[in-house]
Amino acid sequence: MHVIAETVADGVRERQVTVGHVPGLVWTLASGDAPWPALILIAHGGGQHKRAPGVAARAARFVREGFVVAALDAPAHGDRPKTERDESVIAEIRALQAAGQPVLDLITAYNSGIAAQAVPEWQALITALAEAGLTSADGPAGFVGLSAGAATGLPLLAAEPRITAAVIGLVGLVSDELGAAAARVTTPVEFLLQWDDELVPREAGLALFDALGSPDKTLHANPGKHADVPRHEVASSVLFFRRHLLAGP
Amino acid sequence: MHVIAETVADGVRERQVTVGHVPGLVWTLASGDAPWPALILIAHGGGQHKRAPGVAARAARFVREGFVVAALDAPAHGDRPKTERDESVIAEIRALQAAGQPVLDLITAYNSGIAAQAVPEWQALITALAEAGLTSADGPAGFVGLSAGAATGLPLLAAEPRITAAVIGLVGLVSDELGAAAARVTTPVEFLLQWDDELVPREAGLALFDALGSPDKTLHANPGKHADVPRHEVASSVLFFRRHLLAGP
Repeated sequence: MHVIAETVADGVRERQVTVGHVPGLVWTLASGDAPWPALILIAHGGGQHKRAPGVAARAARFVREGFVVAALDAPAHGDRPKTERDESVIAEIRALQAAGQPVLDLITAYNSGIAAQAVPEWQALITALAEAGLTSADGPAGFVGLSAGAATGLPLLAAEPRITAAVIGLVGLVSDELGAAAARVTTPVEFLLQWDDELVPREAGLALFDALGSPDKTLHANPGKHADVPRHEVASSVLFFRRHLLAGP
Repeated sequence: MHVIAETVADGVRERQVTVGHVPGLVWTLASGDAPWPALILIAHGGGQHKRAPGVAARAARFVREGFVVAALDAPAHGDRPKTERDESVIAEIRALQAAGQPVLDLITAYNSGIAAQAVPEWQALITALAEAGLTSADGPAGFVGLSAGAATGLPLLAAEPRITAAVIGLVGLVSDELGAAAARVTTPVEFLLQWDDELVPREAGLALFDALGSPDKTLHANPGKHADVPRHEVASSVLFFRRHLLAGP
């Protein structure tokens, strides 16, 4: 991991990093000593980037709890290059959405390719943070990923035993591949579902929660569309990560 | 409200009370001054009483947050008399359960009668606590009721504007009466559902959440049977009541 720049604002230290060729951000309290007691990784949604508002808001809350928090740009997102194929698929998704046509199958297939690249990148980040001394090698790690972040999160959780608690959601049982990944997850999960999601059918979201192999899983469903996850779910995820990563109340 | 006895243990003051002819318990911190900033009412489940473990555990947590907490024996429960009809219905429910026969319709009809008596008793309790100076007359009130406690809670929430936040659950859309009450509820609700509930079908629980008229409602679903609500839901309800009754984070 290379630290490209480091800034401190409002008591939070932000490091711009690269892990291999992947750009990321790492946040900790400005005061206090490494290694931090636990790590939380935050994967952004489709079309977003490592500094998207939903990532930044969660990072700010988690850092105040004493976690080290890290985010990466997903393949073909943020500061990373897009191939011609990326550009053409993204254009096709936007055209279908503009025309009010079904778009979930195309997004699901595209996210599957993103996830295949992203899973080893997140695994390399966990290793790199320990090697940099920011976390202990055997310290617990959490993961947050909604929508496209969950499409990467499910195979990551299935593959990576160092992640021991995850908040995922806004994803449905819409492919055999996602179902198979969900069944292999055994980590405690807080699963977010939007009751009036215009992108993920309610039944598909409920079916994905049902398919999760985790004995300890909780579904949190709220009224509203795909992008309307209420702010109180951030406070709820703080409680969840305290319980699982810090053995808190 | 008459205070029959008062004890202090572990920093908590417990008052045994009657409101009219209804026996109840009122808990506050032993130190600190009335009026307390907000009230939480806890209704026990079927066959239980005002000091059942699920009531006592929640009361202890809420009191530590500075709430005044109150519980009543439901009609025909705890220290209250049972009529011959109560005894015969309870015997019939137990016989059906022992024989593995469907029992939800009978319980639903019985709880409807309980609720009709209990709703005005809870309303009288809210008034009595303010008259006793333990709460301010315009102070916010919360309500917790699962299973039979929710069967009383839904018509209570529909009728009582002084209750401004409620945790209810383990109840399904199994009668037109419950559906009509749910539709009239506009209070913020945290709704608990057990994913493998052997008494309330999953679809009926999801349908009741859907039927709730509250714009601000959250479904929390956990694996396990009717009686297996995980302990972390108590911590979650603390967060919910802090947010709605104390304007906390």
